[in-house]
Amino acid sequence: MTLTASSPLADTAPPTAAAAKIFNHPRNAWYVAAWDHEVTGKQPLARTVAGVPLALWRNSEGRAVALADACWHRLAPLSKGRVLGDELQCPYHGLRYNASGRCTGMPAQETINPSAVVPSYPVVERYRYVWVWVGDPDLADPTAVPDMHQMDDPAWAGDGETIHAECNYQLVLDNLMDLTHEEFVHSSSIGQEELSGAEFDVTHEGDTVTVTRWMRDIAPPPFWLKNMRDKFPGFEGRVDRWQIIRFEAPGTICIDVGVAKAGTGAPEGDRSQGVNGYVMNTITPETDRSCHYFWAFMRNYRLDSQTITTQLRQGVHGVFGEDEDMLRAQQRAIDANPEHEFYSLNIDAGGMWVRQILERMLAAEGRPSSAPASGRGA
Amino acid sequence: MTLTASSPLADTAPPTAAAAKIFNHPRNAWYVAAWDHEVTGKQPLARTVAGVPLALWRNSEGRAVALADACWHRLAPLSKGRVLGDELQCPYHGLRYNASGRCTGMPAQETINPSAVVPSYPVVERYRYVWVWVGDPDLADPTAVPDMHQMDDPAWAGDGETIHAECNYQLVLDNLMDLTHEEFVHSSSIGQEELSGAEFDVTHEGDTVTVTRWMRDIAPPPFWLKNMRDKFPGFEGRVDRWQIIRFEAPGTICIDVGVAKAGTGAPEGDRSQGVNGYVMNTITPETDRSCHYFWAFMRNYRLDSQTITTQLRQGVHGVFGEDEDMLRAQQRAIDANPEHEFYSLNIDAGGMWVRQILERMLAAEGRPSSAPASGRGA
Amino acid sequence: MTLTASSPLADTAPPTAAAAKIFNHPRNAWYVAAWDHEVTGKQPLARTVAGVPLALWRNSEGRAVALADACWHRLAPLSKGRVLGDELQCPYHGLRYNASGRCTGMPAQETINPSAVVPSYPVVERYRYVWVWVGDPDLADPTAVPDMHQMDDPAWAGDGETIHAECNYQLVLDNLMDLTHEEFVHSSSIGQEELSGAEFDVTHEGDTVTVTRWMRDIAPPPFWLKNMRDKFPGFEGRVDRWQIIRFEAPGTICIDVGVAKAGTGAPEGDRSQGVNGYVMNTITPETDRSCHYFWAFMRNYRLDSQTITTQLRQGVHGVFGEDEDMLRAQQRAIDANPEHEFYSLNIDAGGMWVRQILERMLAAEGRPSSAPASGRGA
Repeated sequence: MTLTASSPLADTAPPTAAAAKIFNHPRNAWYVAAWDHEVTGKQPLARTVAGVPLALWRNSEGRAVALADACWHRLAPLSKGRVLGDELQCPYHGLRYNASGRCTGMPAQETINPSAVVPSYPVVERYRYVWVWVGDPDLADPTAVPDMHQMDDPAWAGDGETIHAECNYQLVLDNLMDLTHEEFVHSSSIGQEELSGAEFDVTHEGDTVTVTRWMRDIAPPPFWLKNMRDKFPGFEGRVDRWQIIRFEAPGTICIDVGVAKAGTGAPEGDRSQGVNGYVMNTITPETDRSCHYFWAFMRNYRLDSQTITTQLRQGVHGVFGEDEDMLRAQQRAIDANPEHEFYSLNIDAGGMWVRQILERMLAAEGRPSSAPASGRGA
Repeated sequence: MTLTASSPLADTAPPTAAAAKIFNHPRNAWYVAAWDHEVTGKQPLARTVAGVPLALWRNSEGRAVALADACWHRLAPLSKGRVLGDELQCPYHGLRYNASGRCTGMPAQETINPSAVVPSYPVVERYRYVWVWVGDPDLADPTAVPDMHQMDDPAWAGDGETIHAECNYQLVLDNLMDLTHEEFVHSSSIGQEELSGAEFDVTHEGDTVTVTRWMRDIAPPPFWLKNMRDKFPGFEGRVDRWQIIRFEAPGTICIDVGVAKAGTGAPEGDRSQGVNGYVMNTITPETDRSCHYFWAFMRNYRLDSQTITTQLRQGVHGVFGEDEDMLRAQQRAIDANPEHEFYSLNIDAGGMWVRQILERMLAAEGRPSSAPASGRGA
Repeated sequence: MTLTASSPLADTAPPTAAAAKIFNHPRNAWYVAAWDHEVTGKQPLARTVAGVPLALWRNSEGRAVALADACWHRLAPLSKGRVLGDELQCPYHGLRYNASGRCTGMPAQETINPSAVVPSYPVVERYRYVWVWVGDPDLADPTAVPDMHQMDDPAWAGDGETIHAECNYQLVLDNLMDLTHEEFVHSSSIGQEELSGAEFDVTHEGDTVTVTRWMRDIAPPPFWLKNMRDKFPGFEGRVDRWQIIRFEAPGTICIDVGVAKAGTGAPEGDRSQGVNGYVMNTITPETDRSCHYFWAFMRNYRLDSQTITTQLRQGVHGVFGEDEDMLRAQQRAIDANPEHEFYSLNIDAGGMWVRQILERMLAAEGRPSSAPASGRGA
């Protein structure tokens, strides 16, 4: 189905007044725990994914492993321990665990308690990320990892960073599903007034939601003018601009963005006179009020220029810093107004479908869609 | 009625052992939200008054406006937004609100939801302050603003500051209603041992309490000796000193202070041979454990000397810094001893009447006089 | 009775799975509040012992006094007040208290309320420490102070420090009762792999537990090689090493440690060819999640060398800093995993007896052995 901004929202989206502010996150899902280069066989990495503290490391075959970050014995954090080939050694008393989480060695005793096990979580390495499944392991299907193929497709080049955002991860999803905020939050870089004026389509299918917006024959904002000139030196003039936002549950949003010389057929499919990027975002809940926000900007032109890769990463870094401030302020205002409802506008149509999908996933897990406002854990 | 320190306190004040430690604050009252110069048409000001986060700004006519600091849509803080003439624009998605709090514009849609309103609170600007009423708006009578006329009366000159005190606002009221603490807390500036030795009178009427203390024929402490010499160059000798503390509910305490050459008739009304100041204090609860303490020191001599204005402001700044440390330490000790009662001495007679008035106001609002110790909000 | 690492632990220690993570502390016990030099007649010292905030000072006879750190009147912290001979004066309104905690002076009134008293706690000064009893004062027997006589015995010399450890005090007891952790936590100084391999004996009697471990004919680790050379310049070769850990309830652990030239009879009692130290530890609960850890290293050779005293103190300082990091990390992991049980290994035999003694003391006080996980107070 297709929505436009002029459609009556009430027919197609859940009732607006009921939108909960602090959402739970599904557990039965793949979440990015780390960039691939962050997980090594030298020093374990401590990271909390969907409320579960993990020690991430690689065994002697280079396979990434995710163990619960608390020793069976006295809960010392395994992430402070040492990787010994195929085992992780507790930093306190030296208990050793293999990749399955089974204890393989204890100090001063030969008999190992058969209950001496720490949870080991399913891991898939894909698209330059280490994905972890902290839910029911029987449901962990490696083919269900969200599509982020531009991350390591040779037709694309680019780099990114991780933001530790001090807000519930759904506030980041809201932020990305409605880019009209660029006009107000990012007015000096990518914002322009045509953003909130342009119509947009919203479609959804299975666990995905897509929001499509075209702005035709407009002046390019600074960020895009610079990129056009990287590909077309000396470019002047107007452009057709697009933003095609694709959400894949529970936390991945890849945005096909770009501009092309106005009237050269980009909306119809000919992007040859334009520049195209993908803003790759995947957001992993940490606690109810914090998340790991992994992003990258990938482009399909001048692939060999590390300078452009760096400039784009720095440019997006600056833009996302503005979002970070706003998201933190929004979370604080939510906490200061626990009774205040969320209301939704036409621009929230994409975000509302996202929440409907998340509610469905949570219902399937038998968990409430909104966490208690006071809960800090997850 | 009149109390003296030698009167049996039990006859005239509430039972001492029952004095609650953490008091609620009345809501149906005018509280200072800001100095007039802090509220502008350029950038909104964020401030929490009596538990209510506010965005304060001025419209195109220069009128101060207080809106709730959370956008109707998704609670982004309006105080981070922009003033656009007679409207305040949300920093996140650009919703616009007028001075009444009604939404006048939404991005990407022409129909504005009639429920799109944020609370707008009554505001009165008086005595160089912006006063706000966060209680029942039907009761907001502008004539009920406490008297602080010395702040902008041409017969008086002076300046002040704002202290963000990390304690319940009633601890500041206690501090100001009993100035014997000057002997111990401010021994190097205004304290002197005659303070706790002198008798004092306590009277109360309606929503006011007055504590009057005269110390006759004493050596002036450093602060007052300096001020006498500002008016009477080369002054030496003894003085009659007075402190007339006047509380007006719920949070304003103006203190008529001064010294005159001993025996020249000041107690009888002739202050011509002395110097006189008013310590203007008004304290606004922020949370249960913090408050905004607005103060100024006004004098009625050498009105044109900015040097004296600055010296007095700096002098009082140093004195009040000593109080700030003590008040924070007292709040911490209260939190560390939740079961510990407050006891009262003769010197607390003024503070006890203050609490009785506040309890009466709270009872009229149907609210308990003491907030739960764990409550951080308001 | 005697246990060895090869004995079946189940016969002699409490069931392992039931070991609670956050333990209460006994109240009817002597705890070190401060080093003797920290308590003076000049400025009171603020310190919380077993959940009780104290103001510690000395009267005109030099006797140490411990009063509750909250004035009877309005709870201002007495530790910010002044010592006036035999009285402590409140910093806010000048109330004075004697060593018994009775108020002896109030401002502006001659009659002193007979209820005006703050608690005064029994104090004993011994072994360079000020010990306080915050429990039932009728049970405060000065002869029950744990034995730490090496602290001021002329046959011993040495010095120490205080660590403010961010963990429940029982995690420090666990740490000290099982020194196999040295192999993993202190591998560069005193750790060596023979530690976890060596057998050990555990005995207990009354309120004490003793763990004895001998490692014969081993290479000395760096710390001990240095100390051997201090006594036997140019020493090379192998040693017999001992660790005799003695716990005395509720928080004192003195460890007889040393090495002697291998085969010279140290295990049989002749330590003349070795060096001997005592690691004196006494741990005082502050809150459920923090404690004061007082330690010193005493030696019985080259008593007059301040250089060696300083080197030993600095050396132990470095070693204990490694423990501090681990203990804080362990406490955080415990808090992040509130449902996770503690399990015990053979190496925990000493620590398990410690807990059994503490449980017995708590039962005698009618208090639960484990505090609620959310409780921060004590």
